[in-house]
Parts: sequence; C-alpha cells; structure tokens
Amino acid sequence: MECLGCKLVNKEEPVYVVYEDDYVCCILDHAPFNEGHVLILPKKHFYDVEELDDDTANAIMKASKLISKTIKHLFTPDGITICQNGGIFNELTHYHMHVVPRYKHQSFADFYLDVDVDREVGTHLIETKKKLSKAIQDISNNIRA
Amino acid sequence: MECLGCKLVNKEEPVYVVYEDDYVCCILDHAPFNEGHVLILPKKHFYDVEELDDDTANAIMKASKLISKTIKHLFTPDGITICQNGGIFNELTHYHMHVVPRYKHQSFADFYLDVDVDREVGTHLIETKKKLSKAIQDISNNIRA
Repeated sequence: MECLGCKLVNKEEPVYVVYEDDYVCCILDHAPFNEGHVLILPKKHFYDVEELDDDTANAIMKASKLISKTIKHLFTPDGITICQNGGIFNELTHYHMHVVPRYKHQSFADFYLDVDVDREVGTHLIETKKKLSKAIQDISNNIRA
Repeated sequence: MECLGCKLVNKEEPVYVVYEDDYVCCILDHAPFNEGHVLILPKKHFYDVEELDDDTANAIMKASKLISKTIKHLFTPDGITICQNGGIFNELTHYHMHVVPRYKHQSFADFYLDVDVDREVGTHLIETKKKLSKAIQDISNNIRA
C-alpha cells in the first residue's frame, strides 16, 4: 500500500487520532496552522471529493460539525476554515479535509504559502490530542444524550 | 431580512444559479477566482458549519461532488479547492462553501489576499452560468439514470 493517507488511517504511521467512526479517521495535522488543526480522512481510499460514497461524505460533514463545535469550545478562535485541496494540490494522494482554527491577526494566505507560522512541536501534539479527544467525546455524548 | 446570503438564495439580489435542490442553492461567485467558481449556500439560514441540520449538510456534500465532477468535465483544472470560512471570516453572514477550480501556475494564497486575479466580468458570468448549469443537469441526469 503506497498511499500515505491510507497509512495514516491504518495507523501505520505515527498519528494523533482525536475522533473516528466507521467511515472517517480524524487526526491532528503534524504541522498545525494553529493548535486544534485537524484532518478528516475517509477510512476507505478516495482521492477526490466526487469519488466519495454517500456514507463517507455524510460522515465527513458530521465529523466537521463535531470538530468545529469542539474547537470553538476549547480554543475560542475568531473563526474556523474548512478546506480540501483536490487534484494535484492533494499532497496526501488521499482525500482529506482540514479543519483549521483561525485568529483575526493572521492571514490565511500563509496556509497556502511556505510561511513559518507558530508551529507546535511533537510534545504539544500529545497534549492537544488528549484535550481534543476528551472534549470531542464529551460533546459527542451530549449530542447523543 | 438583513442577511446577504438569505437574499442571494431567495434571488432578491442578482444571482447566477447553476444548481439547486430542496436544501441548497448553488450560484456563481460574482468575482470568481477562475471560471467555474461556485458558492454552495443552504436555503435555510445557518451561519456556521456546526449549526447545519443533517439534510442540509448532506445536500452540501452531494452538491460539491456534482459541481466538482462538472467543473472537471468542463474546465479540466489541475485541481479543485473546496473551502468554507466561518466565524468572523464568513463575509456573507450565511454559511457558504466555495468550489474553486485551480491551475498549477496560480498560488491559492491569492484567494486569501486582495490580489487582482483574472476576474471575469458580468457578461462572461452569463455564459458560464449557461454552460455550467447545462452540464450539471446532464451529469446529474446520468448519475440518476
């Protein structure tokens, strides 16, 4: 299996999983734009959005709602940008949707440039994973209750 | 009604509709990043992604799949970026997802800067609307057939 995205969802590479269900695996971006930057990946291999089956597409939206709600609760950003880059701009060769907390002093143009932003290092990702996965679980339980 | 997004989906402002169903209205961006740049708006008023009801969320993914397929068919871009800016970065005060064809010579950072890109003018939007809505209809009929 050569696809990096498939390796990530199968945990064949080091990943910080914050949420998963039958269709998607949600992990921390290893070089986050801000703390709480999450990638939503389908468990099945899809390259571009139009290939997604309905169950996976719906699970991606469900996960993006849950993660957005949790990011707002934990980090109170000024906004969240959700984006997915397809075709030659898909650097994982596997569909993935970014959920990115943003603050008003930052330009999101930097997301698309090789600008050094305030990147966390590995040790911080472990802490972020803990608090994010706990809060997602709590919020998810509240929604079901 | 003060929300610009609501006015757009209710056609109380000039819009170029390329596709709609019970839950979403898809229109050309009036200042497209490239030809075929479409906005998907829910017909009901929602501000941010986590507010969306399930039917609307699923309809947004369905529309983004259909529009991406059609954009590839018509314009053969190098890729498509799908993005939605929430919170203070939501300039319509109404949830909207951009579907943007991209080419390799362009930096998508320009999307988030006030850079003049090759903007179409109104007369071109009329032609784009015609060919895009026709192709969406054809592809939609093929999917159902």
